[in-house]
Amino acid sequence: MSSAAKDIAPSAPKTARGARTRARILKAAEDTFGTLGYHRAGISDITRAAGVAQGTLYCYFSGKEEILRELVRDMGHKVRAHLAASVIGARDRLQAEELGLRAFLEYVSANPSLYRVLQEAQFVDEAIFREYYEAFGRGYMRMLADATRKGEVRPGNDEIRVWALMGLSNFLGLRFALWDRDRSFDEVVATISDLFRNGLALDGKEKA
Amino acid sequence: MSSAAKDIAPSAPKTARGARTRARILKAAEDTFGTLGYHRAGISDITRAAGVAQGTLYCYFSGKEEILRELVRDMGHKVRAHLAASVIGARDRLQAEELGLRAFLEYVSANPSLYRVLQEAQFVDEAIFREYYEAFGRGYMRMLADATRKGEVRPGNDEIRVWALMGLSNFLGLRFALWDRDRSFDEVVATISDLFRNGLALDGKEKA
Repeated sequence: MSSAAKDIAPSAPKTARGARTRARILKAAEDTFGTLGYHRAGISDITRAAGVAQGTLYCYFSGKEEILRELVRDMGHKVRAHLAASVIGARDRLQAEELGLRAFLEYVSANPSLYRVLQEAQFVDEAIFREYYEAFGRGYMRMLADATRKGEVRPGNDEIRVWALMGLSNFLGLRFALWDRDRSFDEVVATISDLFRNGLALDGKEKA
Repeated sequence: MSSAAKDIAPSAPKTARGARTRARILKAAEDTFGTLGYHRAGISDITRAAGVAQGTLYCYFSGKEEILRELVRDMGHKVRAHLAASVIGARDRLQAEELGLRAFLEYVSANPSLYRVLQEAQFVDEAIFREYYEAFGRGYMRMLADATRKGEVRPGNDEIRVWALMGLSNFLGLRFALWDRDRSFDEVVATISDLFRNGLALDGKEKA
């Protein structure tokens, strides 16, 4: 069993039709939590948006908190799959960072509920929120470690760098993709690319 | 009138004693919101923690939402004052970034309510949350622009860089100061200092 399958095992549907129903409920929950907020959203708002009966929802989820937990996990899988697809063919880690940042900004712009659901999850159970970033960080750390071995990236503490990079993307997405589209994604990516390629300091780069 | 004074004018107390009472109420609100959360916290929890009568609280604030708004503004002033004090004597912007990041991690560690109050403010009125970072960003942009003129920092879009830098610090504070103290602040600062001085790429640094 792959680790992704194990992650969703407790409520994993047995049939393709079941998987589609479960996905429809999660999508409805994303829209509902994104619009009304977690606390105001009721199970009946979710079933109505999904077009399923309450009894059906309870075949897949024990209640609202489990829906939120599974939704955040599912959003994490989708964001990571979207970013992974965007960097296929990148010639090195630096280009992958550029492609990944652009893909993330596009994703946030197309999926405005992502931030709200994630932020609100903190107050329901901080572990849900933390697990989202830890799962993200684990894959990211492996990629940085590989790139360091290949000589594309300076050696450094990957865990610290990964949290810095996730924070950087998170705030850029919030400001330039979710709140205001007053800067082009090209300009955002070019600015960050320069930071990654050359640092912030003007003076000469040290040899690692 | 300075812009800082204008910011708090509507409820600004007229006497030193009034200013102390107002500050005591805000500190009590910080602890109460930080522990119970904004929605569970009542005005009576705040007055009890502050040791003031309800009537006194309403001399300074119209209600809970105004307390939150003023608290976030007040927290912003304090964080910025703490960081500004920490970088006095820095020989250049790069050293100021190092000293500022360390001071921020120390501040978060000593003031664990900061994140919770800020994050929760988003769901009360997103403008409160956004204004916190915009106020922070305005000062930060001026410092980057000065440093660029002095030849300490590469030219670049300061608004984009500032949001990236705020995000980076925010996530490092969350992970390494608030959640787990499993890495020393020295190690966090050294890792980020290398990123700022040399970039992430191993190969040669371009001339700006």
